[in-house]
Amino acid sequence: MNKSALWHQAKSEYAYAYDKETLHIVLRTAKNDIDTVQIIHGDPFNWVGDKNGLPHWKNQIEIMEKRYQSDLFDYYFIAIKPPYLRTKYAFLLHDGKDKYLFGARQSRLISKDNELYETFDLSEYFNFPYLNHEDLHNTPSWVKDTIWYQIFPDRFYADQKNSNLTWGKLPVTNHELYGGNLKGIIEKLPYLQELGITGIYCTPLFKSPSAHKYDTTDYFLIDPQFGTNEDFKNLVIQAHKRNIKVMLDGVFNHCGYDHPFFQDVIKNGEKSKYKDCFYIDEFPVVNFPLNKHQKPINYHGQKLNLKTFAFTPYMPKWNTSNPITSKHLLDVIKYWITEFDIDGWRLDVSNEISHDFLRQIKKVSRDAKKDTFILGENWDSSIPWLQGDQLDSVMNYDLSYPIWKYLEHKMDINTFKDMVTNYLAKTPKNVMENMFNLVGCHDTVRIKRRLNDDNRRMKLSYVLMFLSSGAPNIYYGDEIGMTGEHDPDNRRCMLWDKKDQDLEFKTFTSSLISLRNHHPSFKAYDYHFIDSNILAFTKEDKKDSILVLINNGDKTEISLPKEVFGTYKNLINLESIDIHDKMILETYGFLILSKEV
Amino acid sequence: MNKSALWHQAKSEYAYAYDKETLHIVLRTAKNDIDTVQIIHGDPFNWVGDKNGLPHWKNQIEIMEKRYQSDLFDYYFIAIKPPYLRTKYAFLLHDGKDKYLFGARQSRLISKDNELYETFDLSEYFNFPYLNHEDLHNTPSWVKDTIWYQIFPDRFYADQKNSNLTWGKLPVTNHELYGGNLKGIIEKLPYLQELGITGIYCTPLFKSPSAHKYDTTDYFLIDPQFGTNEDFKNLVIQAHKRNIKVMLDGVFNHCGYDHPFFQDVIKNGEKSKYKDCFYIDEFPVVNFPLNKHQKPINYHGQKLNLKTFAFTPYMPKWNTSNPITSKHLLDVIKYWITEFDIDGWRLDVSNEISHDFLRQIKKVSRDAKKDTFILGENWDSSIPWLQGDQLDSVMNYDLSYPIWKYLEHKMDINTFKDMVTNYLAKTPKNVMENMFNLVGCHDTVRIKRRLNDDNRRMKLSYVLMFLSSGAPNIYYGDEIGMTGEHDPDNRRCMLWDKKDQDLEFKTFTSSLISLRNHHPSFKAYDYHFIDSNILAFTKEDKKDSILVLINNGDKTEISLPKEVFGTYKNLINLESIDIHDKMILETYGFLILSKEV
Repeated sequence: MNKSALWHQAKSEYAYAYDKETLHIVLRTAKNDIDTVQIIHGDPFNWVGDKNGLPHWKNQIEIMEKRYQSDLFDYYFIAIKPPYLRTKYAFLLHDGKDKYLFGARQSRLISKDNELYETFDLSEYFNFPYLNHEDLHNTPSWVKDTIWYQIFPDRFYADQKNSNLTWGKLPVTNHELYGGNLKGIIEKLPYLQELGITGIYCTPLFKSPSAHKYDTTDYFLIDPQFGTNEDFKNLVIQAHKRNIKVMLDGVFNHCGYDHPFFQDVIKNGEKSKYKDCFYIDEFPVVNFPLNKHQKPINYHGQKLNLKTFAFTPYMPKWNTSNPITSKHLLDVIKYWITEFDIDGWRLDVSNEISHDFLRQIKKVSRDAKKDTFILGENWDSSIPWLQGDQLDSVMNYDLSYPIWKYLEHKMDINTFKDMVTNYLAKTPKNVMENMFNLVGCHDTVRIKRRLNDDNRRMKLSYVLMFLSSGAPNIYYGDEIGMTGEHDPDNRRCMLWDKKDQDLEFKTFTSSLISLRNHHPSFKAYDYHFIDSNILAFTKEDKKDSILVLINNGDKTEISLPKEVFGTYKNLINLESIDIHDKMILETYGFLILSKEV
Repeated sequence: MNKSALWHQAKSEYAYAYDKETLHIVLRTAKNDIDTVQIIHGDPFNWVGDKNGLPHWKNQIEIMEKRYQSDLFDYYFIAIKPPYLRTKYAFLLHDGKDKYLFGARQSRLISKDNELYETFDLSEYFNFPYLNHEDLHNTPSWVKDTIWYQIFPDRFYADQKNSNLTWGKLPVTNHELYGGNLKGIIEKLPYLQELGITGIYCTPLFKSPSAHKYDTTDYFLIDPQFGTNEDFKNLVIQAHKRNIKVMLDGVFNHCGYDHPFFQDVIKNGEKSKYKDCFYIDEFPVVNFPLNKHQKPINYHGQKLNLKTFAFTPYMPKWNTSNPITSKHLLDVIKYWITEFDIDGWRLDVSNEISHDFLRQIKKVSRDAKKDTFILGENWDSSIPWLQGDQLDSVMNYDLSYPIWKYLEHKMDINTFKDMVTNYLAKTPKNVMENMFNLVGCHDTVRIKRRLNDDNRRMKLSYVLMFLSSGAPNIYYGDEIGMTGEHDPDNRRCMLWDKKDQDLEFKTFTSSLISLRNHHPSFKAYDYHFIDSNILAFTKEDKKDSILVLINNGDKTEISLPKEVFGTYKNLINLESIDIHDKMILETYGFLILSKEV
């Protein structure tokens, strides 16, 4: 047995509470190393007398399912329901020759059949001490069925001309404003509803000098460029009427240079009552050049006297352990929920905010409205933030990454499958299903440009996003074929003229939304990869099973195992199709198929 | 390279904030698999132009120390101080033939020397996004230097005769009371001070019908058997005068059957305002037989209508998500700190209390007095509880286990070293140094009995406990040679008659305390095991180095490597000793040696 590949940890992504009564247990072993894995589990206090009157620990032994196989590892899975919500457990590994007990302290050979019991010591076992309901994920139930649409408000739609700039002028910058506004979004709600959108995520709306508005001046005020607080209230009301949720972008890691608390610190220095709202290492705060508007010139290299987001002096980092800061920000969080009925907060730079403050954000949000969604902008694997106490979900770059690299031809198919398999194996299911899935946003190159402005390739990315567990996000304009380089070019004005729109892609997007809503297998956790020269997998639900074929290259004859041959329905065009030997798949072609019965 | 043995996870015990500016990074590899491990790290936002004007990520490459070697693994370690408190990092592994980059998403071969940079992608790197000070462990500084003494109050000392039982009568039970009390403890404070004790931990003192008092009736009242609240106030005052801290045992997972909230639920059933303070699955609550005193008969097998500790109907589990419960218990926690100035809470069955409530306990305790210590009774590896937000420390059974098994001859020396090495490698240093180390307590067989009532063997256990990082705990009477089987026999009356006391062991205990206070190497994190036929290791501090030899068996000629030969001072008897070839160590003999210079 390859002992060094064994991995399990209690109370981690390898052993977590899935719901009020169920634990999910995952064991990692080396690939093809073990014949059978059993779990031996029972209540830690359930001791009874055996037939000789000796204390005997009541337990159950069950076979675990070999659920995932990556390049290096097998992942065994079982869901158990401990009757008293407590479990001690260990694994019995049979490698054909020997049998081992793998517990919390070591893995040891069981040389005789009876030795498991003779040397029995419950302190060797893993422990899941208690499934406390108050520690469970309680993500609002609406999240996992949502189709998100991300709006960059200045560039989406203007209900009237609000700017001297011509709508659509190129190139775009981060300081020029095109006049997109809230009334514009309201006017386009029918468009979004028709597309199938059920949630909009707006990048920041609060008063701020930039076009992106990630440098907040006033957290209680909609930026006048976008409209009024009343307009926003109306937007939420109108959206809700169309069953569309509204999520705001909360920038609580830092504020903008113009925020009055920070301006007070600049003005009054050490005497400012707000000085500990920030991390000021030394006074005076301003040790960097200012432009003619008395704003910092953004440059790199000088040691700043304060902590900031990145190295940008116009984004001072909040000290959220200061009570003035925390009260201010928590009041903001409560205000927009209770007064405007928003449905969620997307937390900017959430991974740099303290865990302690994230917990307070979640508590205040849920207290204000019990089904408020808390989404974090974490770019990396985020299990420490996804324990049920902080974030409900993150922007799921863990999935975007392999999709991007594979479709860009920067990653071979095996590495792609390996990475996705590890993601599936190591992501708690109750986290995965609420993930915010994306193939592009205001922080990345547009998916269309990333894939060489090739529509066919972009479709493949959408197929993969829509076929993953978690809620897909459409970055505004993706659906009508918008393209763009990195920030700021990814923030172009929405193309509203039908002549400029890729209507075929729009129809395709609508189809995916509709298919996802009607085929539960789209939302199933697992991809079952099929051995093939192209990317092929099935997804299954109790009611539903689909076969997906993706050709990430030139027109080719595809090889598939016989087991999948047969007649299917092509879910995109509803035609019948016969899957057989020597089939041809077009360049960047794909098929989403449902077995005909 | 053995890829399947590689392990690292950001924001875990493999990458944690040690103090306000330092991160500790640990990488696990297969044993003897890698020649050199380097870490490449830098600020995620620190991009500068290279000589061609292309964006270049500023980073540092450093060699990591191979700090621990277990049977299967090498553990590489480095402490880094990210200037802006943010770090992205990956590992460069050289196995003599090839070079690999091991990052968050995969380990990949670097085929050419320049490929690291050519295919550079920062999203492959691990991320420690921000070292937020509010998430740091802030364990009170007094904890790590404490010598704890655990008192079972009914059996420690009675200032006057309070019971019909003869002090010391055997066998002991859990319902008969011997009359030990708080005035008795006060009277014995000089004894404790003289021994070198700096912290006492009392098992529960609050009103409760049992002798162990883990079934609380009134959390605001010292049990009249032990004295009054005033007596307790006096105990704390007198202890503090002698620089002795006082820690109470808080039973917040469950209460006792007689607690008025629970009695109200029994009486009023579903109409009780306290019904949701507990987990009542069905009414009536009482579906079990009562004895003539109307108390539940403790038996096993029937399905209870409520959740309890273990299966004991007289210990109903608190529902701490209920506001009446949480207010009640948090008020208790605050009361004893603010009104009585206690220094810490030991939380009974802490691993079954919700993480959420543990966080509230810590906040309330620290708010009441900033250097209050929070110790948990977790029997298993407890990293999820030791993230800085919940417990400061746990009863360190992770260390007790190998010490017990090795000294009991149930574990060979190699397994012992392997288990201790893995413990050292995987326990954050700022947790380890505050651990509550123990070789016995009211829940285990006494260490003396465990080791066959052999004084020499018991000394070995104390040597190992006192030579470990973390604060040692003396279970009352251990120091004068008390013995006893499992509960209740481990709770015998303290032997105060000098004729009954093992005074040589008491002197030995005092010596260990004094040595620990004067030799910082006693508290050093690492054991450096030395290749030998006995257990041999060195411990080192900047100012201090010691060599420890432990013979866990018959008199033997010991083999030691030449490097350690030389003249030492025996720290127990202060004699000079020459360590050389063919030395003899007595049966169960040991030496704690300081190099003479």
